[in-house]
Amino acid sequence: MVAFSKPLAAAAIFAGLASAQSFQRLGTCPDLGCIIPPDQADFLAGQRFDIRLEVHAPVNGTEATGNPNPDEKFEFYIERVGGRRGVQSASKWFKVPEPKLEKWSFGWYEDFFARDAKTPSMVNVASKAYRKVYLDEAGEYKATLKHNGKTTTATWTVRDLAEVRRTKNVLFFIGDGMTTNMITAARLIGHKSVNGKYQTRLAMDKFPVLGHAMTHSVDSFITDSANSATALYTGHKSTVNALGVYVDSSPDNFDDPKVESIAEIFHRVYRGHIGIVSTAGVWDATPAALTAHTKDRNEYPYCVDSLLRGTNNTAWIDWNGPDVLFGGGAEHFYSPAIGGKTFKNRDYYEEFAKAGYNVYWNKTSLATAPNNERALGIFTVSHMSKWLDRNVYKKNLKEQANHPSGNKGDAEDEPGLKEMTLKAIDILHTRSKANKRRSSQGWFLMSEAASIDKMMHALDYDRALGELLELDDTIRASVEHLKALGELSNTLIVVTADHGHGFDVMGSVDTKYLEAQKEDRKKRNAVGVYQYSGLSQYINTGDLTYSDGAHFPTNWTPRYSLFAGVATSPDRRENYKLHEDGPRVGATTIPGRASNDYYVNPKDAPTGFTVNGTLPTEEPQGVHSLTDVPVFAMGPCQELFGGVQNNIDIFFNIANCLGLSRTAHGKGPDPVGN
Amino acid sequence: MVAFSKPLAAAAIFAGLASAQSFQRLGTCPDLGCIIPPDQADFLAGQRFDIRLEVHAPVNGTEATGNPNPDEKFEFYIERVGGRRGVQSASKWFKVPEPKLEKWSFGWYEDFFARDAKTPSMVNVASKAYRKVYLDEAGEYKATLKHNGKTTTATWTVRDLAEVRRTKNVLFFIGDGMTTNMITAARLIGHKSVNGKYQTRLAMDKFPVLGHAMTHSVDSFITDSANSATALYTGHKSTVNALGVYVDSSPDNFDDPKVESIAEIFHRVYRGHIGIVSTAGVWDATPAALTAHTKDRNEYPYCVDSLLRGTNNTAWIDWNGPDVLFGGGAEHFYSPAIGGKTFKNRDYYEEFAKAGYNVYWNKTSLATAPNNERALGIFTVSHMSKWLDRNVYKKNLKEQANHPSGNKGDAEDEPGLKEMTLKAIDILHTRSKANKRRSSQGWFLMSEAASIDKMMHALDYDRALGELLELDDTIRASVEHLKALGELSNTLIVVTADHGHGFDVMGSVDTKYLEAQKEDRKKRNAVGVYQYSGLSQYINTGDLTYSDGAHFPTNWTPRYSLFAGVATSPDRRENYKLHEDGPRVGATTIPGRASNDYYVNPKDAPTGFTVNGTLPTEEPQGVHSLTDVPVFAMGPCQELFGGVQNNIDIFFNIANCLGLSRTAHGKGPDPVGN
Repeated sequence: MVAFSKPLAAAAIFAGLASAQSFQRLGTCPDLGCIIPPDQADFLAGQRFDIRLEVHAPVNGTEATGNPNPDEKFEFYIERVGGRRGVQSASKWFKVPEPKLEKWSFGWYEDFFARDAKTPSMVNVASKAYRKVYLDEAGEYKATLKHNGKTTTATWTVRDLAEVRRTKNVLFFIGDGMTTNMITAARLIGHKSVNGKYQTRLAMDKFPVLGHAMTHSVDSFITDSANSATALYTGHKSTVNALGVYVDSSPDNFDDPKVESIAEIFHRVYRGHIGIVSTAGVWDATPAALTAHTKDRNEYPYCVDSLLRGTNNTAWIDWNGPDVLFGGGAEHFYSPAIGGKTFKNRDYYEEFAKAGYNVYWNKTSLATAPNNERALGIFTVSHMSKWLDRNVYKKNLKEQANHPSGNKGDAEDEPGLKEMTLKAIDILHTRSKANKRRSSQGWFLMSEAASIDKMMHALDYDRALGELLELDDTIRASVEHLKALGELSNTLIVVTADHGHGFDVMGSVDTKYLEAQKEDRKKRNAVGVYQYSGLSQYINTGDLTYSDGAHFPTNWTPRYSLFAGVATSPDRRENYKLHEDGPRVGATTIPGRASNDYYVNPKDAPTGFTVNGTLPTEEPQGVHSLTDVPVFAMGPCQELFGGVQNNIDIFFNIANCLGLSRTAHGKGPDPVGN
Repeated sequence: MVAFSKPLAAAAIFAGLASAQSFQRLGTCPDLGCIIPPDQADFLAGQRFDIRLEVHAPVNGTEATGNPNPDEKFEFYIERVGGRRGVQSASKWFKVPEPKLEKWSFGWYEDFFARDAKTPSMVNVASKAYRKVYLDEAGEYKATLKHNGKTTTATWTVRDLAEVRRTKNVLFFIGDGMTTNMITAARLIGHKSVNGKYQTRLAMDKFPVLGHAMTHSVDSFITDSANSATALYTGHKSTVNALGVYVDSSPDNFDDPKVESIAEIFHRVYRGHIGIVSTAGVWDATPAALTAHTKDRNEYPYCVDSLLRGTNNTAWIDWNGPDVLFGGGAEHFYSPAIGGKTFKNRDYYEEFAKAGYNVYWNKTSLATAPNNERALGIFTVSHMSKWLDRNVYKKNLKEQANHPSGNKGDAEDEPGLKEMTLKAIDILHTRSKANKRRSSQGWFLMSEAASIDKMMHALDYDRALGELLELDDTIRASVEHLKALGELSNTLIVVTADHGHGFDVMGSVDTKYLEAQKEDRKKRNAVGVYQYSGLSQYINTGDLTYSDGAHFPTNWTPRYSLFAGVATSPDRRENYKLHEDGPRVGATTIPGRASNDYYVNPKDAPTGFTVNGTLPTEEPQGVHSLTDVPVFAMGPCQELFGGVQNNIDIFFNIANCLGLSRTAHGKGPDPVGN
């Protein structure tokens, strides 16, 4: 239990920034000095990272001191608590030359009133950055920034982890935006229950170890997928939109202080085999955060390049591409000559081919891919189609102009998450086995069900739950496949999410009764809650063929549908029927009114009733939520993942199980890379 | 994985009742024959239960057969699969006389259209009930009902559990309606975080084992607290509003087939010491389900009697009251002469006193209670006051006319859940230690934070989170107290919930900005999502004195409040400010309109904007949700509670840990009771 003094002392920090909430000067700064990585940061021994120091001189606003010039002669020191080296300047500690001074200015709003009035607070900055350093002894460190006669400190911790590898492979599933509530709903529509007892269960339900992960950001209590992927892959919490970096205040999207990712460390230490699979564009936050380092996740062309070549805008580790990269997002691959938008205007199909990749554009050709060669599979423009459309409403795959070649045809032969993941396992397994260097054998595969999140944003719960059931089916099939390959006991399998949406199910809706009512208030009386929710009607008729062991609804459009909702939304209309024409668009703008002012989409759920939202009117979709997310673990080191933990602990647990910690005096084998 | 044939075969069952969803003839009947306990029921060996058989003859409606007379000559058989006794009539199996035939009729609506048209479907019933039977060999049983030349079957399972006691004590906390989402929000407002790392954590967060429990009912996928308490205490899922019984179709609230509860079994087997603590009226579903057996949780006067004397309307086990009973609900204790509404018009303070209880009406006198004597503490009329009002807004305790004496004064000296629970532990510990019969030593204590649920229903999130933090503080203090008593390692502690609400937090609200806006849509723009959520402002100033180790917000009314919501609600108004005048009333009726038609309460959140709900307009409050609930476990047998399980498994795990299974040929000590 904590002493009372700690919260009290901390209160003083906030006092000066009482109104800095919706906007912040720079979230990681406790005062006018900023040390990044910030106070309370945790590190893996040997993990590469950049340090950014900033000294702020507010020109106006509540923090202005009257001196608009930042102290350019600031000093920065490092000390390992209890260590023999004592306090040393950072350049001495890391044996690097003193970095050059940088200067810039930035503005921020102190609250919504200032934003409306367009009255930013301006800040002048003096800064330095140390690049590609690392700490190689476990323990607590004090980082001290001296500026303007004041001192800003940060406590860093290098975790004390054994340098012993306990798993050969890691299979890391991310259900983007997936909460326990959604898992409960997916089980209800996909599995049969008799008198309250399920006769079958989800693959996730069978995992022996369950945990919860806290998803808060470094500077906001709600996260996005970039920020949270950074936490899951690097052990460092960051800021919304940031990939593999902490955010500094400079205008440059590419100079922010980097932190090394699990994929980069696995590559550096072992030259291990790596696979990346997603139903999103491969440049989207969750896949890209394995290699990208930028504060802006929207730098998609750069993200594609980073997947192949890594990041070298400043000194950084080498990287030469994963063994497997499967997903959507062709528009940042094909040539600008046919409309692509790519890094340095290159053709990235050619770039990958030149680097030794076979390139695949559809499920049929993917199935023929040799397992001993590197593979790039890009199956659609933008994100891939949803399970429900690929399997039930196939007409929605027409007229999408999303063929990955960029030829404006339709991508009608897409693989699903299961096909991509099983193929990725085959390639990783084969290439790993053929690797002559024993320490390089074994693999890390990240497989993301991206559109659970995307369909929750759209308030399209049917499609979101379809994606979740596809993820579960992928997990089930992967476990069986690993067993068949003899690799199940060599593979740590972790399933988690990066953040939630405030989704739940509260009962059922008699859609026939709802449509028969003429008044909005009467339509609401079609809802049955508590005992009137009755039982799931999604598994009672045979529209779909089950593949062996797979579990999806047999009837996606029962008369009694789920009474589902999210805890906040834009304006919308509800009839609780499946959106058979494709992903839902609940809110839209009105011609003649502002282009960022969203109202009920009159074309959505036309037989339903109107509900006004509670979100800011410029939000067209649902948003992320606070809730801790579930963590399921099976295999070597599974016991590390039980109970309540922080999302960064997932990184440290995986790194620990892979034996990636490297101290100066440790017993781990020497890294293969630099 | 399951074969395809299973769902297909089951589909046939539903086909005949395709429209039976919001209403059902009788949820546990697969066809016109009903065996209760129903198909897939699980039992503890030796657990007492009643059997109810019904044969239905629908007179009209979609199921009518043309014969309105139920088969009165139905036969019922039991067989243990693989056992030596073969198939026997139930009366022979259980060695009881054949029960007498009962007959009645009931009506039900097939859907909302039928309800509106007031056209029920009528059913004539022939029935028998076997009372207080038990199964004393582990294994699978087939129960067969032959009627009208047809056969209805049910599979029952008696779980194979060792008859070995592994824990001396059980401390069972129930956070009514508590979800992971709420726990995440409570942590956010009660604990300080630096750069995404909490500096302290919840007591629950420190539990070594985490699980999820599925809460579905036997006949609906949404449950209530009566139904779910029955599942948690008896291992049998039931129906909304039912306490300790399965529901039959007879009109009598007291003839439904009973199932023995964990408290009753602990009493029967060991004469163990039992405590019941709740912040609700002690007759409310969660406390009452430990002793009451009725299909209608609203039979409050009976529930109070059952807590003292048990249930003897038909043959049932003896019961002579718990060692400790603390909570609210005085109106069903004090004499009808001063306005009480009691069982058989008795004065239940007198009844408990005659049975040897000391009676307490306030915190001050409770503190003086001798630990070696039985104690009844009833501290308010109705449910107890909320933590926020007892500790921060004490003016709201005035003019409540809720003094437990029934004297219309105010109950201004209420204990909290922590005081009640710690005192209950002291009494149970002292009395257990003094018990001369060694097998009777040890105790079972259920402690319920009832108003997490009640305040979530009211959409009063601040009060709900206050109740949750009080529960957490109670857990923390109980762990410390058990340690001090030397009983921590002897005590299995389980924390769970009975069901959820679709609650989550999506960001923050600048309440100052919201109030400054004049239009409803502009008020919504006071919301900050993602990075604009910022950090929690609830722990930054010192309004409250921390007790040692306790963690509550230091500022309950920051300018930037939580942007919280539920996934469905009645019509309401939102300004996201704490309801300082007492628990929130979001929706109300309008004079001159129907008395069950709810609209925005104009007195609630007057500076806010209006949101129309999605619930049926006759629902004045929020409703329960589907989500699996968390289970935290610590102590002996903690390993049984990890991963995804059914809520009934919590009963079996506790019973297993207490060694309550008793088979005919087992090695467990003979039960003390009958």
